[in-house]
Amino acid sequence: MRVEGSMDLFDGGVMSQLVVRSFALSLDGYAAGPDQSLESPLGTRGPELMEWFFHTRAWRSMHGNDGGEAGVDNEIAEQGFSEIGAWIIGRNMFGPVRGPWLDESWKGWWGDEPPYHVPVFVLTHHAREPLVMKGGTAFYFVTDGIDSAVEKAMAAANGKDVRIGGGAATVRQLLRAARIDEMHLAVRPVLLGSGEHLFQGIDMHALGYRCDQVIAGERATHMFLRRRA
Amino acid sequence: MRVEGSMDLFDGGVMSQLVVRSFALSLDGYAAGPDQSLESPLGTRGPELMEWFFHTRAWRSMHGNDGGEAGVDNEIAEQGFSEIGAWIIGRNMFGPVRGPWLDESWKGWWGDEPPYHVPVFVLTHHAREPLVMKGGTAFYFVTDGIDSAVEKAMAAANGKDVRIGGGAATVRQLLRAARIDEMHLAVRPVLLGSGEHLFQGIDMHALGYRCDQVIAGERATHMFLRRRA
Repeated sequence: MRVEGSMDLFDGGVMSQLVVRSFALSLDGYAAGPDQSLESPLGTRGPELMEWFFHTRAWRSMHGNDGGEAGVDNEIAEQGFSEIGAWIIGRNMFGPVRGPWLDESWKGWWGDEPPYHVPVFVLTHHAREPLVMKGGTAFYFVTDGIDSAVEKAMAAANGKDVRIGGGAATVRQLLRAARIDEMHLAVRPVLLGSGEHLFQGIDMHALGYRCDQVIAGERATHMFLRRRA
Repeated sequence: MRVEGSMDLFDGGVMSQLVVRSFALSLDGYAAGPDQSLESPLGTRGPELMEWFFHTRAWRSMHGNDGGEAGVDNEIAEQGFSEIGAWIIGRNMFGPVRGPWLDESWKGWWGDEPPYHVPVFVLTHHAREPLVMKGGTAFYFVTDGIDSAVEKAMAAANGKDVRIGGGAATVRQLLRAARIDEMHLAVRPVLLGSGEHLFQGIDMHALGYRCDQVIAGERATHMFLRRRA
């Protein structure tokens, strides 16, 4: 279960995989805290889930900063961005706007040059023109459901993997449909007590998921799940 | 979060504490698998939860065998037995007999000399005379509820700690009542998918529990929780 030498966590095969990486979970199974709001998109105490990531060099460089730690957590976070050809994210991960888009002014949380550098498919009920940003990121708004989003993202990924950014509702929907091939959970030693539970009502064993590997990081325990066909 | 040098995991203060130790949990939060039965008291795939323990020197010596591994999992398992003055266990942990005791023939799963060596209080609805075994173990059958069991066990422990052996229903009842002071969970990298969930419906944060320490073992990730008064 320990890290030995260099890690090659993700299989990087020739087939595109639908993957979840660096997805944080509390010890009691919550992917977000209670009382999610525009001010607290991860809910009360939700940011504690991300504490393992905030300290990494990967996180700091995504936000244009130097420094950060270069340990196990960082290496796993960095590998989670490699060989990703497209992303799928839920509407709430793109921004706080609810309902129809009032105008085109909201362009995501990330400024002019988002850290994706590939196409990002945003699940929404409200159509909007694609949004091409600096550095290779383009947001496409998908209104005809998650299967369509997967199909579009797979085509755009051009043989690389498609990463699901979240949130929990999006991940749960794809787990129930057994669409996700690999899942990396960063289990944090915190108890949220309530909020958005990742696995409740989802029988991961029956869906074919198994945990293949556990790696102890500095601030999280990394669990690697894979679905057996 | 790593093991460094020798461990002193449990505080060993002057006050008796009510503690849970070496309690195994699946990655998706189950303390027992589905379809518990007399033949499978831990339910389908439930024994996978205990795999970390079966390999330890502590487990083997409890069953009169030599050998076993002497790593991190073993050290934590061994420390879990130290300074315990009494135990509380649910009826189903004592044996498969349901309903009234038909006779006095069932004396636990453990033979003539059970591995407790101190008084063990068994929660049951059916009265029975105490059962004194070899090696210091005596089983007392408590029919007037869990608070009474705690009171009796604390008195019997004589300043040492009282360990809750399980099962999950007993632990859940004591968690809800915020009676448990310390809890050591051995989180296993397995997905049971269904079964008996430990935390469902229990707000561990609101009850005052926090995770103080995480230690990576060979076959489990050990999480140490404590309740803040």
